[in-house]
Amino acid sequence: MKKTLLATALLATACAAHAQAPLMVYGNIDLGLIKRDGAALNIGKRDHNRLGVKGTGELGAGIKALFQLEIGYEPDTGTRATGANEGRPGSGQRPLFQGQSWVGLKGGLGVVRIGRGLSAFQETSMAFEPWHGLPTPAGFQTDIMVAGFTSGPLGAPGSSADRLSDAVFYHSPEWNGLQLNATVAARESPPGGLAVPPLYPSGAQASANPFSLSTTYKNGPLAGMLAVERNGVESEVYSIGASIDITRMVPGLKLMASYIRQDHSHTAPPGFDSARAWVLGANWAMGAGTLLAGYGQKSPEGVARTRQLSLGYEYSLSRRTQLYFDASRRRAAAPAAAATRVNHFALGVNHAF
Amino acid sequence: MKKTLLATALLATACAAHAQAPLMVYGNIDLGLIKRDGAALNIGKRDHNRLGVKGTGELGAGIKALFQLEIGYEPDTGTRATGANEGRPGSGQRPLFQGQSWVGLKGGLGVVRIGRGLSAFQETSMAFEPWHGLPTPAGFQTDIMVAGFTSGPLGAPGSSADRLSDAVFYHSPEWNGLQLNATVAARESPPGGLAVPPLYPSGAQASANPFSLSTTYKNGPLAGMLAVERNGVESEVYSIGASIDITRMVPGLKLMASYIRQDHSHTAPPGFDSARAWVLGANWAMGAGTLLAGYGQKSPEGVARTRQLSLGYEYSLSRRTQLYFDASRRRAAAPAAAATRVNHFALGVNHAF
Amino acid sequence: MKKTLLATALLATACAAHAQAPLMVYGNIDLGLIKRDGAALNIGKRDHNRLGVKGTGELGAGIKALFQLEIGYEPDTGTRATGANEGRPGSGQRPLFQGQSWVGLKGGLGVVRIGRGLSAFQETSMAFEPWHGLPTPAGFQTDIMVAGFTSGPLGAPGSSADRLSDAVFYHSPEWNGLQLNATVAARESPPGGLAVPPLYPSGAQASANPFSLSTTYKNGPLAGMLAVERNGVESEVYSIGASIDITRMVPGLKLMASYIRQDHSHTAPPGFDSARAWVLGANWAMGAGTLLAGYGQKSPEGVARTRQLSLGYEYSLSRRTQLYFDASRRRAAAPAAAATRVNHFALGVNHAF
Repeated sequence: MKKTLLATALLATACAAHAQAPLMVYGNIDLGLIKRDGAALNIGKRDHNRLGVKGTGELGAGIKALFQLEIGYEPDTGTRATGANEGRPGSGQRPLFQGQSWVGLKGGLGVVRIGRGLSAFQETSMAFEPWHGLPTPAGFQTDIMVAGFTSGPLGAPGSSADRLSDAVFYHSPEWNGLQLNATVAARESPPGGLAVPPLYPSGAQASANPFSLSTTYKNGPLAGMLAVERNGVESEVYSIGASIDITRMVPGLKLMASYIRQDHSHTAPPGFDSARAWVLGANWAMGAGTLLAGYGQKSPEGVARTRQLSLGYEYSLSRRTQLYFDASRRRAAAPAAAATRVNHFALGVNHAF
Repeated sequence: MKKTLLATALLATACAAHAQAPLMVYGNIDLGLIKRDGAALNIGKRDHNRLGVKGTGELGAGIKALFQLEIGYEPDTGTRATGANEGRPGSGQRPLFQGQSWVGLKGGLGVVRIGRGLSAFQETSMAFEPWHGLPTPAGFQTDIMVAGFTSGPLGAPGSSADRLSDAVFYHSPEWNGLQLNATVAARESPPGGLAVPPLYPSGAQASANPFSLSTTYKNGPLAGMLAVERNGVESEVYSIGASIDITRMVPGLKLMASYIRQDHSHTAPPGFDSARAWVLGANWAMGAGTLLAGYGQKSPEGVARTRQLSLGYEYSLSRRTQLYFDASRRRAAAPAAAATRVNHFALGVNHAF
Repeated sequence: MKKTLLATALLATACAAHAQAPLMVYGNIDLGLIKRDGAALNIGKRDHNRLGVKGTGELGAGIKALFQLEIGYEPDTGTRATGANEGRPGSGQRPLFQGQSWVGLKGGLGVVRIGRGLSAFQETSMAFEPWHGLPTPAGFQTDIMVAGFTSGPLGAPGSSADRLSDAVFYHSPEWNGLQLNATVAARESPPGGLAVPPLYPSGAQASANPFSLSTTYKNGPLAGMLAVERNGVESEVYSIGASIDITRMVPGLKLMASYIRQDHSHTAPPGFDSARAWVLGANWAMGAGTLLAGYGQKSPEGVARTRQLSLGYEYSLSRRTQLYFDASRRRAAAPAAAATRVNHFALGVNHAF
């Protein structure tokens, strides 16, 4: 999920460089040793694991056709990606091309795509989280920032929490550092869809078209983001994020912060229908290594607040191969129950191909 | 399903051109907006979506080894191909290599393959239908021509209606425009197989070897086809098709017609054991665009007749990328019930890679 | 399963040859006609069928990153690999990357990998069996040598009998013909795991870390192997194998023998808790062909002994394409019941790409 909109935009350029090879097979594999309180030493992932094909085709007049198909998988067991690792409901196996599957056109007015992919909000927000949006429990994206919110809540079990199927995606060109991203999905009832009481029986279609909007701004060392998303059960998120590269004061240091507010008033009872979360973080590049640090908390209304502190280190053995180490402590301060504390350690390797 | 026998034959030639690359990754992605009476605006496919590998290997003495493995998928949701879109029983997810999976030898006496693929009849007949055999409801192949007939009726739910597993395929060379194609399948009981009452319990093996024979003939602007197929429950189809390219009278215009007769007397009661269908169509190439038109009807014995009228337009943005628009009306004239009428509109893009 | 440790080690070298292509798509397809007593003529495989990607990346200082992802499939029906063909419990569909999925580092001290793959014992032992460890009933690996033993017994149904998930693999360099291989797996409970009464409910974690150790030795025409493995339910195997290439006496002839002892005393009642098996075999290369011959028997304690005699012939049409013929007779001499005898014939083709 490190892939930013910029990367998406650069894809066409990269592929155009080998015009004779309109198709590229790519992917990554990430595995490590994981030790969590209360569990034996496990072997698992830090990043999503992907195997995909992507490519471009020249259409003339500065227009290109683009496509991307991406399998998500679990290399420790060889299965397709499962939902279990994200700590949210739906632990079934995900679709074959769980990562993304879309075709689009790119021209002077931006990129328009049709198919399945990350929603505009989910894709944009990862750049303002110190673990690059990785699904590891040491990161803040999955279990702190968007905890409790699902972009496609009516999908089949395991149908991924941050993606929209049956959608149209638009990404504007950058105007003076400003970029606009919009996703709108059809209301069609997803195959094998989940029930979301009290309003949505299993297989129901969305009561309104899901959409996701985000805008990003870059100006020298500064970057910012504003986003809003409404999913198929009319839950809403509002989010703001910012980062500053203070490399002139401290070489290699970048600071970031983000805030999110969720509104589930369409389906949840009053007193339990909202949530908010915030994260502060830093990435400090030092030679081939980068130090990661973050602190954040989520406060679902009527439920215990969760706080998390994480430290990490990434070391690049080459442009494609990286070692990493994460240490994280999460504490749920339950008002009525005893506070629970979980420590998490991971040491592993991520190889891109 | 545009792939014709000719294309299969040309594959070896194409691959031989890069002798250092005996393996080719290929595919296509097709998505569009679909509006049907009685349903919200959906996003879906017009063509099958494929991702595959294929290749050849030189064996000397003019003999080549060939193979092909083809994943079928649904790009709107990222899943493997499902059976639902074809309007026939069995909506389960299809096999991973649903499209085809075979290995074969090609020499002066033709091509012999072993594995899974389109039956000789199904593969040949698509060239005589104005929508090239595409599975879209605007086309005539799936829901008019072969409606109610399944090449592999004893397969698992969703195991594809037009393919034979556990089969041997033969394609003769062309003699003066004449080509012979034959498919014979083993009687083995398919894994997870369906019950077909009253004679076939779930997992039963075929009562006779399924086979499929077709012969095609080409002579200048004329082309014709004769085919017969018997599936694993001894249902039979007989089909004839013809096309004429009258580009000398009307530049770019090609007319076509096909007729099919089904016989289900082995499993269905008298009065409900046969069906017939016919389709008239035209493809009119004009520059980068092609206009498609067709009219057809199916008449299952003892059941309401269905008539369909379709118009379509395909526009090639490049050799690989095509935009399309379809408009179709289907009417089922139920004798006892009220006639039902469904309009279908689709606008989308198909990119081959 | 022909892949030996040597082949694994050579992979890096092979890929390094095209430094611009760090990723290689590869695979094989194997299909033939199979006739067994008591069954109709079937179409099926002799070898495993694979489609994978693999590659290397230079890290400097003589270190390389390696990875491999391998789909297992059934080309007769197009599905993912199923467990049924191995005659052991668990006939479900296997993981998508059933063959292997791992990432590793290779340097002067050997290769260390993390992920899923063949256990050290299973990988090493195949070189001492006359059918190269192929899963065909004509071979001896699956149904004679390791019959009744599963490397990952707590895995989901169909999760492959000879592989370890969540494991770390080490392969030493060769010292004077000696090589050491070790696999250690995490105790974590596998998703969808099986129950193994009386001690392991479904989804239980291993009571001890599974491990597998093997050592191989090569000295001119001689090769040998010693191995021990303990799986997740603390069943153990001990195995010894040897081969000698007597090409100087009989050109092209290689003889081999292997013996295995299984100990299931942790889960099975006394009198039924052990098994042993042995196989004698020969491979006789003659020009483009190789004659295979083998005889072996398995003797599970308290159960009928099974004996098997097999003859086979492999003929290479090219470096990548092979025809084969197998004939085999297996006889189970049940003490109380009548002896059962099954003849097996197969004729097919295996194409690597």
